[in-house]
Amino acid sequence: MPNVSIVLGIDIGGTNTSFGFVDRAGNIVAELSMETKPSDAVEDFVSRLHHRIEEVRTGLPSHHSLCGIGIGAPNANYYRGTIEKAVHLSWGETVDFAGLIKKYYNIPVSITNDANAAALGEMLFGNARGMKNFMVVTLGTGLGSGIVVDGRLLYGSRGFARELGHTVVDPMGRQCRCGKKGCLETYASATGLVKTALLLITERCDPSPLRAMDSKEITSKMIFDLAREGDAIALEAFDQTAKILGMKLADAVALTGPEAIFLSGGLSMAGDILLKPTQQYMEDFLFSAYKGSVKLMLSGMAPGKSAILGAAALIWGELDL
Amino acid sequence: MPNVSIVLGIDIGGTNTSFGFVDRAGNIVAELSMETKPSDAVEDFVSRLHHRIEEVRTGLPSHHSLCGIGIGAPNANYYRGTIEKAVHLSWGETVDFAGLIKKYYNIPVSITNDANAAALGEMLFGNARGMKNFMVVTLGTGLGSGIVVDGRLLYGSRGFARELGHTVVDPMGRQCRCGKKGCLETYASATGLVKTALLLITERCDPSPLRAMDSKEITSKMIFDLAREGDAIALEAFDQTAKILGMKLADAVALTGPEAIFLSGGLSMAGDILLKPTQQYMEDFLFSAYKGSVKLMLSGMAPGKSAILGAAALIWGELDL
Repeated sequence: MPNVSIVLGIDIGGTNTSFGFVDRAGNIVAELSMETKPSDAVEDFVSRLHHRIEEVRTGLPSHHSLCGIGIGAPNANYYRGTIEKAVHLSWGETVDFAGLIKKYYNIPVSITNDANAAALGEMLFGNARGMKNFMVVTLGTGLGSGIVVDGRLLYGSRGFARELGHTVVDPMGRQCRCGKKGCLETYASATGLVKTALLLITERCDPSPLRAMDSKEITSKMIFDLAREGDAIALEAFDQTAKILGMKLADAVALTGPEAIFLSGGLSMAGDILLKPTQQYMEDFLFSAYKGSVKLMLSGMAPGKSAILGAAALIWGELDL
Repeated sequence: MPNVSIVLGIDIGGTNTSFGFVDRAGNIVAELSMETKPSDAVEDFVSRLHHRIEEVRTGLPSHHSLCGIGIGAPNANYYRGTIEKAVHLSWGETVDFAGLIKKYYNIPVSITNDANAAALGEMLFGNARGMKNFMVVTLGTGLGSGIVVDGRLLYGSRGFARELGHTVVDPMGRQCRCGKKGCLETYASATGLVKTALLLITERCDPSPLRAMDSKEITSKMIFDLAREGDAIALEAFDQTAKILGMKLADAVALTGPEAIFLSGGLSMAGDILLKPTQQYMEDFLFSAYKGSVKLMLSGMAPGKSAILGAAALIWGELDL
């Protein structure tokens, strides 16, 4: 049987870390999820991760050969191989994470921000196949962004992901976890949608089942379900979110000139309820030369798989060069 | 005497067109300015331009050899060699300008937007020498921008300059000549500064020589001169301009990650009165990972020379590859 090259993709989150072995076609051959336990020392975490990887790896057919490890993680620096000041991981200022993995695996190891990984995954395995200029926006607890220009990730001078989530909507606006006020992610994210709905309950008089709920229990999924039933507050919350997101996407188009923008992450699962008004508002704010030329679409990768596929794409993209 | 390669740089504006022969060190060996007469047919304009170029060229020492022509023009498309929908030139929808020049000169001809040319000039001959990631912002009648990523101009999928000037400050704000409302260039430009001062005269009570002037006669230069004398209205106009510009520059940093931003164009000649508050406001709005890491500086090219040098850099940059 011929030898088959595979890549290990690892997605590190504040709660869970998942990994999978991915072939060149984007099939996940085997995968596993484990707790991150972010308060553990990073060396202990890597040791534990290594054991779990080897458990899964020994179950792989013998003709698979591992040719690289790609990692997606918050605040990862591609150029340095480090994770820096990640607020949900108590690993200190700067961790040479790629270096720690290399102690166990003498093969290419690359690390990047999760939003950058999502963009690479979209280019290799998703809806951006064949595109040279596009953007991926991940809408979850926060808002992440990965921008591809001329077929390459736009890292800028400092090696991080692009921070669309921390562009300014309103300098007097909502407090952001980054310390600034009015950042886009305080509006256009699962968290932001909930805040908008809570404000609307106070500001408006429309009846809504949301009024009877404990405000701490309200989730973006509940607002989505109500919006599908025609609830005025929920629909307005999506519309306001779409307007702000559409305006800032138009700014991002003006600066980076993509042919398409892909939405991924939990909030993107709202589908047309978010996508259609966002596209309309983006069009309203687009510079004339760009009107009608930028597609807004959902990610082509399955929600639960995109993080592993994206991390694996980091290596597959390099091996393809 | 050894042969010396030179490049012809042409800057096409709505009023005047200037050109110069530029050596690799960025010296303008000979130059000339002529009226554009934008209502002429483009073929007549190019014929006239060709005659003036040849007049100057015959005066050059015989050991100069012309190895390319670079052109900076409004709404120029680098990929197609065209000028498209330029509002100040009555040349129709799309003109194959590079093709028209090539009828007279069988050497490499490249064309790009004037702000892109300014960025290339800064990289080859100005303050961005040695930099791989930076941005040039031209503050004149409008606001133009050229963005360099990994040593290459960021064209995006459509081949135009990046349109920082048409990102949105206020969707209900000032009418822009592009048809939208509240674009950055309606605030952060020579024209925008004058508008801000006129509004401040109405809104505030501070005495100012501006009150005695005919509002149609007020220029950004007058406001600059008054600001230097401590005039409260003029200083506030610069401060408001700097605040809006600083905020949108911080957004641009979040999206493209430059190590420096260079201001050029007429309004940049205000120097520290504009530069210092803009830097301060930009810092206030920068995402934590970028605070203190982005230099805001004036262009290193002489104001009257930058357009010709930038156009020539378009060819010099290609020849260097």
